[in-house]
Parts: sequence; structure tokens; C-alpha cells
Amino acid sequence: MRISVLGSGTGTNFVAIAQAVARGELRNVDIALVLSDIENAGILARAQEFGVPCAYIPVTNFKTKLEGPPEQAYIEALRAAGTDYVVLAGFMRMIKREMLAAFPQRIINIHPALLPAFPGIHSWEQALAYGVKITGCTVHFVDEGMDTGPIIAQAAVPVHDDDTPASLHARIQQEEHRLYPRVLQWLADGRVHIQGRRTFLVPPGP
Amino acid sequence: MRISVLGSGTGTNFVAIAQAVARGELRNVDIALVLSDIENAGILARAQEFGVPCAYIPVTNFKTKLEGPPEQAYIEALRAAGTDYVVLAGFMRMIKREMLAAFPQRIINIHPALLPAFPGIHSWEQALAYGVKITGCTVHFVDEGMDTGPIIAQAAVPVHDDDTPASLHARIQQEEHRLYPRVLQWLADGRVHIQGRRTFLVPPGP
Repeated sequence: MRISVLGSGTGTNFVAIAQAVARGELRNVDIALVLSDIENAGILARAQEFGVPCAYIPVTNFKTKLEGPPEQAYIEALRAAGTDYVVLAGFMRMIKREMLAAFPQRIINIHPALLPAFPGIHSWEQALAYGVKITGCTVHFVDEGMDTGPIIAQAAVPVHDDDTPASLHARIQQEEHRLYPRVLQWLADGRVHIQGRRTFLVPPGP
Repeated sequence: MRISVLGSGTGTNFVAIAQAVARGELRNVDIALVLSDIENAGILARAQEFGVPCAYIPVTNFKTKLEGPPEQAYIEALRAAGTDYVVLAGFMRMIKREMLAAFPQRIINIHPALLPAFPGIHSWEQALAYGVKITGCTVHFVDEGMDTGPIIAQAAVPVHDDDTPASLHARIQQEEHRLYPRVLQWLADGRVHIQGRRTFLVPPGP
């Protein structure tokens, strides 16, 4: 399974995935390409450190979505790399119709909350402000909504009384780094089946 | 701490609390009264089995809220019983302004989901339909909203691929029966502090 990772930030989830591949914990997965819409994003530097092809593809027509000519540029780069799955890892733009059609049920995202609670940005700050005692992270298929696609896996994370946004975010990220490689292994093994809004994990093959 | 329990259903949470009191696991808590808006509700039969005073107080003016003359009847009964905390356990009516004013920050509820996800009724069916992998239960202070008050405690419950609404609901209820007595002990020990939407658990006193 060839995956390509899209990110706008520091790339901690990319590193977690790349390390899992390097250690042989994530089998039959190749990271084909890393793309970013931010020229100096840490994820591009991390990709170079791991020897993974990477590119900055600017998006100048919209601020919060990937649509139009830049969307086509991303699709072409992903296709040229032989991408089976598009893995969003802190990519701060909404994925729109053309890209969804190019990789149907082949785009996944990780979100730092137990969806459907706290979609959108800074969800750990939303969780603290609401006063929940448990939050977490969610890996889901991407659809046209904001963090609304079918959920593949979730992990719970406790909120502590003395948490700051930073300490809570760090605890969630630890779980993200465990959860994302695990889900990628399920996908590589063909174990994730979608039925409507629900997904099911089928037993591993022989 | 004298608590009164309000319920419309079978009373499984009442039983969990009454058993915790009977076993000495829940200390310094007396169950003063059980009230129901359903004449043949199981919770009234369970109260009689535990020797707890109980009453059916009909509510005929509204279907989904407690307001007006029946609300006054509940308030009077709760006050006459010397109620410190009102404990909602499957009480299927919205609590309104007069009762909230009579027991300020002294009414708690347990909800079978990880709020703010899946408020309202049949939240385990909502969770299954949405396709979450983790749900749970929440104990919270009651305010004028639908399951919106400050959260005191939550417990996570996994959703299994082969869950039915009944099997998921049963797994959530198991956690409810653990969580509700624990929170009542915190309240009896004066350990729950509210700051805005957040609550904090302070260390037990000497």
C-alpha cells in the first residue's frame, strides 16, 4: 500500500508513521510522497530526514480549502506517486469534491477529539472550555463535511484538572501517534469495511 | 448528605446507589426519597424493596418537562424530605427554572453518552448510528439546557462491531452503576468545586 501524507504543520504524525515503517512495525506500507501547502512546514524537513520524496505545492486561491487549479496539482502529484491512500496529518484545508472523487474512500484524517464532539480547529481548547473529563482522537474517512466522515478508530484520553491546552494537546498527540499507524496497518491488510456511516474491522486474512 | 432520586424507568441506577449505601461503599449518604412521574415505574418497586420512602407524583400539564403546579409539588416533597442533592436517574422530563432555583447546583443527572456528543434520548442508538468507536456516560450538574450542565465525571465505553442497541446500552449501564455512586461520594465529601463550565475534584479533607 502506497500512502502519501499531506500536512501543514510540524509533522509529528508523519514522523510516527515513518518510524513505524522504519522499525518494521507497519508492514506492507510505503510512504510515497509528502505534500504541504506551507513552504517552510516542519513536515517537509521531517520528510527529507526520512528520505521521503516531498514537495511544497502552494494554494493561493483559497485560505481554508483545496479547490480549483491547486487541487488539480495535488491530485496529479498524488497520482504520479502511485498513491493508494491519502493520509491527512495536520493538513489545514478542507478536501473538496474533485479530490474526493479521485481517491474515493481512500482519504483519511486524524482529528484530536472524540468526534462528533469538537470538530474543527483547536479541539483540545474546545474540550477544556466545555469541561469534558474525557476527550481523545479519531481516525476517519474524509468526506465533504468538516470532520464528519465514517469513523475507523478512536482512542480516549483523560482530561486532568490541572491541564493546560498544551499539556492536553500533548497527551492527545501521544495517542494519535499510536492510533494512526495501527489504522494504516488495518487498511494495508484490507481489514476495514465501510457500511454507510459505520466501519467494521474484519479478521486478518490467512 | 441526604439525596432524593427521581426516575421514570426501571431504576437500575437507583439500585446501584442503594446497594452501594447498603454495602457501606457509599458513606455519609442517606437516600431520603424516591419520586416518579410514572405510576407503575420499576424504580418505585425497587425503592420499596430497599425500604426507601417513595411516591408517585403525576405530571399532567406537560409531556417532556416539569413545570408549574407539579413542579411545586416535587419541590415541596423534596424539601419536606430534607433533600440536599436531587439525583436524576432516568427521569424523562426537563428540569425547569423553579426547581433549579430551589436546589441551586444541587441537581445532578447521569447521561448514557460522552457529552457533548449525543444529548437527548436513546443516545446509545445515536452513537451506533453515527458509527463512533467509543461512547460512555456522563454525570453532570443540571442546568436549563438539554444535558448541557457542567460535567463532574465521565467514563468511556467501547463500541463493538457486533453491538446491538441493547448490548451497547447494557455495557454503558454497567459503567453508569460504577460512576454514579463514586460521584455521590465526592459530593458527600465536599470535593466537587465548580468554576464556570468546569468542575474540579479537590483532595479529600483530613
